[in-house]
Amino acid sequence: MRQKMADMVHRIQDEICEALREIDGVDYRQDEWTREEGGGGRSRVFSGGKVFEKAGVNVSIVYGTLSPQAAKSMGGGHELQGTDLDFFATGISLVLHPINPMAPTVHANYRYFERGEGQKPGSWWFGGGADLTPSYLFEEDAIHFHQVHKDACDRHEVADFTKFKQWCDDYFYIKHRGERRGLGGIFFDDINDADRDDCFAFVTDCAESFLSSYLPILERRKDLPFTSEQKDWQQIRRGRYVEFNLVYDRGTTFGLTTNGRIESILMSLPLTARWEYCHEVQPGTEEYRLLEALRQPRNWLEN
Amino acid sequence: MRQKMADMVHRIQDEICEALREIDGVDYRQDEWTREEGGGGRSRVFSGGKVFEKAGVNVSIVYGTLSPQAAKSMGGGHELQGTDLDFFATGISLVLHPINPMAPTVHANYRYFERGEGQKPGSWWFGGGADLTPSYLFEEDAIHFHQVHKDACDRHEVADFTKFKQWCDDYFYIKHRGERRGLGGIFFDDINDADRDDCFAFVTDCAESFLSSYLPILERRKDLPFTSEQKDWQQIRRGRYVEFNLVYDRGTTFGLTTNGRIESILMSLPLTARWEYCHEVQPGTEEYRLLEALRQPRNWLEN
Repeated sequence: MRQKMADMVHRIQDEICEALREIDGVDYRQDEWTREEGGGGRSRVFSGGKVFEKAGVNVSIVYGTLSPQAAKSMGGGHELQGTDLDFFATGISLVLHPINPMAPTVHANYRYFERGEGQKPGSWWFGGGADLTPSYLFEEDAIHFHQVHKDACDRHEVADFTKFKQWCDDYFYIKHRGERRGLGGIFFDDINDADRDDCFAFVTDCAESFLSSYLPILERRKDLPFTSEQKDWQQIRRGRYVEFNLVYDRGTTFGLTTNGRIESILMSLPLTARWEYCHEVQPGTEEYRLLEALRQPRNWLEN
Repeated sequence: MRQKMADMVHRIQDEICEALREIDGVDYRQDEWTREEGGGGRSRVFSGGKVFEKAGVNVSIVYGTLSPQAAKSMGGGHELQGTDLDFFATGISLVLHPINPMAPTVHANYRYFERGEGQKPGSWWFGGGADLTPSYLFEEDAIHFHQVHKDACDRHEVADFTKFKQWCDDYFYIKHRGERRGLGGIFFDDINDADRDDCFAFVTDCAESFLSSYLPILERRKDLPFTSEQKDWQQIRRGRYVEFNLVYDRGTTFGLTTNGRIESILMSLPLTARWEYCHEVQPGTEEYRLLEALRQPRNWLEN
């Protein structure tokens, strides 16, 4: 399974980067890196193109021995000790921040973990998800993104779209703001109570669905006209993105505590962000419509 | 002591804001807020003036019962329970981010804590410090800032400048970057092993020294010419400031876990920040000179 998952994420990285290169009109920068304690990765980042302010698509395979602190942020269960702290992790992680404030930021991440020998129940699991973070709310975009992911879930017995959508809304909660980072999507942290190949098939299907979930949205929004005030609002939303990733995100914490490659871990941060003191949004505006959807998550497919 | 400290920080807030108003050419925005669980504060923020991109000077008095998590981030000792979780805290906190990349960001913070009745040894303490965060290194600025704070320390038996400078370098360490947030200053987290009035006199002296530690530097740098590349570098340094504050800063953690006023807690964040993937700094440049001083702290008064 280690090899199958590693092969899959590398293949998906190639497919996604090929598509992004065509849209963005520039090539990505690739960095292959190795990790002193074991493993490494291949980071690809777009910047300076016509569509993305900053866009990264990373794969990595890391292994070694966890610190108790890292084991805690890795999740998946109870207290660990001794050889249980050995781990293997591989996955793909991408964050795309478009220039146009009408085009949403998107994040997706699919990963496979093993602990110890990875044979005992509970010693391996898959995690992942995809979520959409617009600065302006287009309901048809939210519906399309959720529909594609629901379809992927519906093709697999191991998946439960309703549960994963709820998990996404819960996970991406910025508690100190009382709002979610984005509109939702799917999130699952430890799928391990089914056949391992079935889990792999589901995660593969999700990863293969990414482009069809996002590209139609990007095509519709990337060339829309916008004002400098709308760009400022995007920058303020970028600030919230930074707040979530640095304060709450478990993937970031895991990377910071396992001595991962810092530029790859923080690749998810936007190129620029803004914090205005006491920024206020007036009811009735488009900005307020977005905030309402972040404060009170919706089931996009049931309205 | 509660009243004496509260009076002092309000007086210092007035003095500092008066001076900043004169330099910045605009008035501050003031917000008085109350905290549901007890207490409140007075936040003053400058923005849109000719010198500061964003500058906040806040005072607060908060009290109530701590959550065990908040008690932990509050510091000052051992595990707590029962009525020991009652607390009182008052202080002043300021962060000034100038527009000009040649003018350094500065932070200062002086606070007094009580736990329970505040009568037993170890149940009250003072904390605080001031630190300088330039984007470009002017050694005379670093020397002046440290000299003023050393002079304040030297006037009080309860203070130890050498120890507090070291504490500052240790505290403002951005571990995942291998660099400090700034050039240093002083930092002390729990002064409580002396007469309470002597401690108060020291903290008051520090707070009263703030303007003379920073204004001469600001005057020298605020109108220097700069390029757009230098402004970009400042924005990248602002990104590191955000990383420290959201990932490591105990004051921010304390605020986020005690349901403080979110806009006052995050007032310390810059107006704008930037994250370039794999930004590289060439040896021999001014940017590299700064980085060297952040990677290897110096004793500015002994060179």
